[in-house]
Amino acid sequence: MIELHYWPTPNGWKVSIMLEECGLPYRMVPVNIGRGEQFTPEFMALLGPHHRMPALIDDHPTQGRTPIELFESEAILMYLAQKTGRFLSTEVRARHETLQWLMWQVGGLGVMAAQNGHFLAYAAEKIPYAIERYGREVHRLYGVLDAQLGRTGQFVAGPEYSIADIAILPWVRIHRAQKVTLKDFPQVQRWYDQVSQRPAVKRGLALGRELRAPVLSEEARRALFGAAAPNGPRESPAG
Amino acid sequence: MIELHYWPTPNGWKVSIMLEECGLPYRMVPVNIGRGEQFTPEFMALLGPHHRMPALIDDHPTQGRTPIELFESEAILMYLAQKTGRFLSTEVRARHETLQWLMWQVGGLGVMAAQNGHFLAYAAEKIPYAIERYGREVHRLYGVLDAQLGRTGQFVAGPEYSIADIAILPWVRIHRAQKVTLKDFPQVQRWYDQVSQRPAVKRGLALGRELRAPVLSEEARRALFGAAAPNGPRESPAG
Repeated sequence: MIELHYWPTPNGWKVSIMLEECGLPYRMVPVNIGRGEQFTPEFMALLGPHHRMPALIDDHPTQGRTPIELFESEAILMYLAQKTGRFLSTEVRARHETLQWLMWQVGGLGVMAAQNGHFLAYAAEKIPYAIERYGREVHRLYGVLDAQLGRTGQFVAGPEYSIADIAILPWVRIHRAQKVTLKDFPQVQRWYDQVSQRPAVKRGLALGRELRAPVLSEEARRALFGAAAPNGPRESPAG
Repeated sequence: MIELHYWPTPNGWKVSIMLEECGLPYRMVPVNIGRGEQFTPEFMALLGPHHRMPALIDDHPTQGRTPIELFESEAILMYLAQKTGRFLSTEVRARHETLQWLMWQVGGLGVMAAQNGHFLAYAAEKIPYAIERYGREVHRLYGVLDAQLGRTGQFVAGPEYSIADIAILPWVRIHRAQKVTLKDFPQVQRWYDQVSQRPAVKRGLALGRELRAPVLSEEARRALFGAAAPNGPRESPAG
């Protein structure tokens, strides 16, 4: 059985969508990042010092008998792709085109959207320079994605749906909180409308929906962004 | 022959080190990001809308006859690892441990160090909130790396030198500009002293050293951070 340590955010959704797409049975363990549950001794003992969900434990890996424990959502996507043989081609060109766009998501859209979300919604001060900086960058990245989707006419990395789509979709889902208008990016709109209709995507995005509080509590804000918490800026709860 | 579109920054160094480690012949084409050369029609025609170096063209890929063109330094590392069979294990556990720390670098240390560098050195205004936010996050990430290197006692992802080391090393190289003191992270210091002595690392870090101007010119600042340039905040020239 696969155990998914999870909270419903874009990084969590990547893995819940992938598990649903692959049809793998799994058990979800909530990690309430608003309450700082990623700092509990249990979580740290399992998953080390990085304090980040999602994390995955597979007690029946394809090689060896010891359970495999992984953090970092994209490493988990690559692992599940290898385990199932799905959503990541073994043909060199298609494989690395997919990995290229997966990396673009990690260091580009994902992390810039998280910064944008932080300065728009969570930072205790309004800082025009930072809001302008990250807002401009997120719009630039949507433009890059739009151009790429126009080039392929299909999915992010070409004619096949892949882990690049699965990783990018959750960030596009939260475009309104990012102050992005999808009408400005017609290819992104076309792609988003298509992929969000996939039944596995719907199930993945629904996982743990009931866990999300509508408004971030003061306790959650302190746990996520307070100086006392050893947490960092990467994952916004809106994200 | 491999063509490397490159400028001497941490993301560029990852690929120059990897090419040197693998002993692959290559030709370096400078992309002066301070002069905006990533926006030339030639670069865009080759490498699409993302405007980022490093980028790599391999006109003798292992499959097919059409040259492979890749951007995103970590996708290039994974491609070269597959091409040469080096620095990324095919054993499932070791492979994904390596990919996990590679991803930690992409979305964690690399991008946070770039933000930290921006607000410390390049932002037109001094913004205490942002300097504190990214400085704290970079120190937290050095702590995570230190704990991990203490656990392995060797390299980032275990007993074998891997693309995770190659990707993380260039960011640690610029620790002084990040206001990080390596004495505070003894395992990082131990590892850095060791890996930076590798001849291929020295050659990779030396590539194009003569291209770097000692001080960022006003022209470069406008090309990188001015509102007119469609560039974003991800890559700092100090980085």
